[in-house]
Amino acid sequence: MEQVKVVLQDREIPKKWYNIMADLPTPMKPPLHPGTGQPVTPDDLSAIFPMNIIEHEASNKRWIKIPEEVLQKYLLWRPSPLYRAYNFEKLLNCPVKIYYKNEGVSPAGSHKPNAAVPMAYYNKVAGTKRITTETGAGQWGSALAMATQMFGLECRVYMVKISYEQKPYRRLMMNTWGAECIPSPSTLTQSGRDFLAKHPNSPGSLGIAISEAIEDAVTSKVKTHYALGSVLNHVLIYQSIIGLEAEKQMQKLGIYPDVVLGCCGGGSNFAGIAAPFVRDKIHGKNVKIVGAEPSSCPTMTKGPFAYDFGDLAQKTPLLPMYTLGHDYVPAPIHAGGLRYHGMAPIVSHLVREKLVEPRAYDQLKTFDAGVKWARSEGFIPAPETNHVLAAVVDEAMRAKKEGKEKTILFNWSGHGIIDLTAYDAFFAGKLKAYELPGHEIDRALRAIKNFPKP
Amino acid sequence: MEQVKVVLQDREIPKKWYNIMADLPTPMKPPLHPGTGQPVTPDDLSAIFPMNIIEHEASNKRWIKIPEEVLQKYLLWRPSPLYRAYNFEKLLNCPVKIYYKNEGVSPAGSHKPNAAVPMAYYNKVAGTKRITTETGAGQWGSALAMATQMFGLECRVYMVKISYEQKPYRRLMMNTWGAECIPSPSTLTQSGRDFLAKHPNSPGSLGIAISEAIEDAVTSKVKTHYALGSVLNHVLIYQSIIGLEAEKQMQKLGIYPDVVLGCCGGGSNFAGIAAPFVRDKIHGKNVKIVGAEPSSCPTMTKGPFAYDFGDLAQKTPLLPMYTLGHDYVPAPIHAGGLRYHGMAPIVSHLVREKLVEPRAYDQLKTFDAGVKWARSEGFIPAPETNHVLAAVVDEAMRAKKEGKEKTILFNWSGHGIIDLTAYDAFFAGKLKAYELPGHEIDRALRAIKNFPKP
Repeated sequence: MEQVKVVLQDREIPKKWYNIMADLPTPMKPPLHPGTGQPVTPDDLSAIFPMNIIEHEASNKRWIKIPEEVLQKYLLWRPSPLYRAYNFEKLLNCPVKIYYKNEGVSPAGSHKPNAAVPMAYYNKVAGTKRITTETGAGQWGSALAMATQMFGLECRVYMVKISYEQKPYRRLMMNTWGAECIPSPSTLTQSGRDFLAKHPNSPGSLGIAISEAIEDAVTSKVKTHYALGSVLNHVLIYQSIIGLEAEKQMQKLGIYPDVVLGCCGGGSNFAGIAAPFVRDKIHGKNVKIVGAEPSSCPTMTKGPFAYDFGDLAQKTPLLPMYTLGHDYVPAPIHAGGLRYHGMAPIVSHLVREKLVEPRAYDQLKTFDAGVKWARSEGFIPAPETNHVLAAVVDEAMRAKKEGKEKTILFNWSGHGIIDLTAYDAFFAGKLKAYELPGHEIDRALRAIKNFPKP
Repeated sequence: MEQVKVVLQDREIPKKWYNIMADLPTPMKPPLHPGTGQPVTPDDLSAIFPMNIIEHEASNKRWIKIPEEVLQKYLLWRPSPLYRAYNFEKLLNCPVKIYYKNEGVSPAGSHKPNAAVPMAYYNKVAGTKRITTETGAGQWGSALAMATQMFGLECRVYMVKISYEQKPYRRLMMNTWGAECIPSPSTLTQSGRDFLAKHPNSPGSLGIAISEAIEDAVTSKVKTHYALGSVLNHVLIYQSIIGLEAEKQMQKLGIYPDVVLGCCGGGSNFAGIAAPFVRDKIHGKNVKIVGAEPSSCPTMTKGPFAYDFGDLAQKTPLLPMYTLGHDYVPAPIHAGGLRYHGMAPIVSHLVREKLVEPRAYDQLKTFDAGVKWARSEGFIPAPETNHVLAAVVDEAMRAKKEGKEKTILFNWSGHGIIDLTAYDAFFAGKLKAYELPGHEIDRALRAIKNFPKP
């Protein structure tokens, strides 16, 4: 009998989050206030976030204590198991050992509750009564629905319309946890109405959904804050729990990975597993770190690095990041969580510093990898997760070609049980492989033209 | 920080299944061949099961070694965690400690793979190429789809039509694992066609789906066997892994339960967790063991104990059990896995021996408990699991009334992520509370009238 997984006991859960800001080899450009062109201050952000979260957003502290109340909720599914994917290895027949962190074990089925729980907690402590947010495929929205319910807050989720239609069970999940779920663009906000007037048949995008959620938060009569499920520094800090656990689990096995991989939408699950290994790489360790994004939304591989807005209606600060333009509406791929025009400033910075290698995969290749996975390892992956699986297959094939043995570690970010209609479409030959049309780069360059240059 | 769960390492997984047949205080009546009225022989069963499984069906051995290949697959999700439900306890505000075994962590989302994996394995070893089965809510069908895929066998699942329609994602899950899923009654079998001729609009039942799956297996040109997801002795043996792990985990905490509970459809998840505790009770331990069934299908609480067929078309042996008659078509409750007219002969025997206490709960009460659970503990329970939750609430209220502190252990048999439309219907006030109409007892008595008496 071969050991398949390493599980940690509750008492072994990491008690602090890790903040890679403390270890960056070169400083990052600050987010800018779009009106003044000056770095944003905590006060600028206080309309949408509570001050305890803003402190983390601006923090350069290496370690941040996880509150007792957050740990207690984390223990409902954390520490998550670290698996060895023996069956997938056998199927690939390449000289690789594949380890993965199974984040699908959370009640919402993905890594998203790692950030949702602290956000709900900090908002509760700050006196917030209600939280608004956006969601792509619904992973983030359902995670926040669960977390707000746990701390007695109201929650409204603006869900990208194409995903709302493709994944009806996600809305039901949010409702079951007591939250409202609204397809975006909606008529509930000015941003939504303006957008619908110009694009009545839009499938929606994270960019417009963010605008709606922010507008709702700042105009609500109840004390409301906004929560973002990825991109920002504080989200990446909260997700570091994944990598910290993985590091501990790999140490128990006495091994260190040659390659660490994650899929990239806004960047939080990727940064979550990668952070401790990026730190090691900064300090001289030989480890390759790969971020997998969709070829239909190839932010890191094709977008310019620029100051851009995080949302369509230009309500966020200007962020220094790889971007396809805040007005980009990505193709309707099933990996709704990866349909974001930008990339976390921290991840963008790591790509520029060549600490992280981005790669893009088309939808068909990712589903092919996902079906192989489900039929060998059992667990059915989310369409987002299929992107990292495509990158793992790629890495395994490279190892074979190079004739080198490699140890791979990746973040299996979530299960695809709510996304089964996507598999159905794949089997029926109805899925398309989207590439970014050339003119979209021109549009992206126009979108950022008048902003300061990082 | 309070410990929420006990996890076992891979090496701690039990290496043997437990067979309660070895410890029964009184002998059970044997299954009978309907033609001869004599106890069935292994040969009688060989048309539908391979001989290695028949051996377990007829076994009185206390311990049965789990094959290495089965253990290796079990490790994909086992040992499953034992949880303390602090948040649910707080909500109930009763003098109880509630522990539960989370069987929702398997790739198929329920306890069913515990039996599906050994069945696929033993069939593979016996040279079977293809397996047919029936499924209610789809938990069993998807588990077998996964297990047969793991061992390279073909699989066809006859799914009760009402569930096929209520839970479309279950079919997609089976397809993703490479299996066929057919709504039953179907036109693919003589049993299905005969039934449809009489009841063209039937919602289906496990009874008719079993007939179809057996007929398919015995008439197929490819070497095909049939697999049953509950009821029979060998299934209960394979599920004993739940109780054996729970026992180990409770021992690590130094506690012993006052009450052990499970929901009852065919009886396998209930017997799975209960078996080691029933053994202790037989040997004098003071422990209450409760089986929760739906009030719309109250086999143990209202049915006669009799010899009856396991299926509508009378293709199985006559089994000594509580039964509502093999021709019973239960109300279309969402807990499709509990819509079975009979009860495992072993569980029936334990009820008659007063080692197990049956209770019936209506659908509304079970969903009320399920929503409370989802909103406190996070994990969304399957409609079947909601039945045991209703019984847990009941037990907690009794403890309060009696002013006694109690330790409760129950089997959280699976998650409800595929069943979210049922929650939607519940919130919309569209669910009904069904009770068994009195004339159904008369029909049940007619159905068994001409069979031998146990």
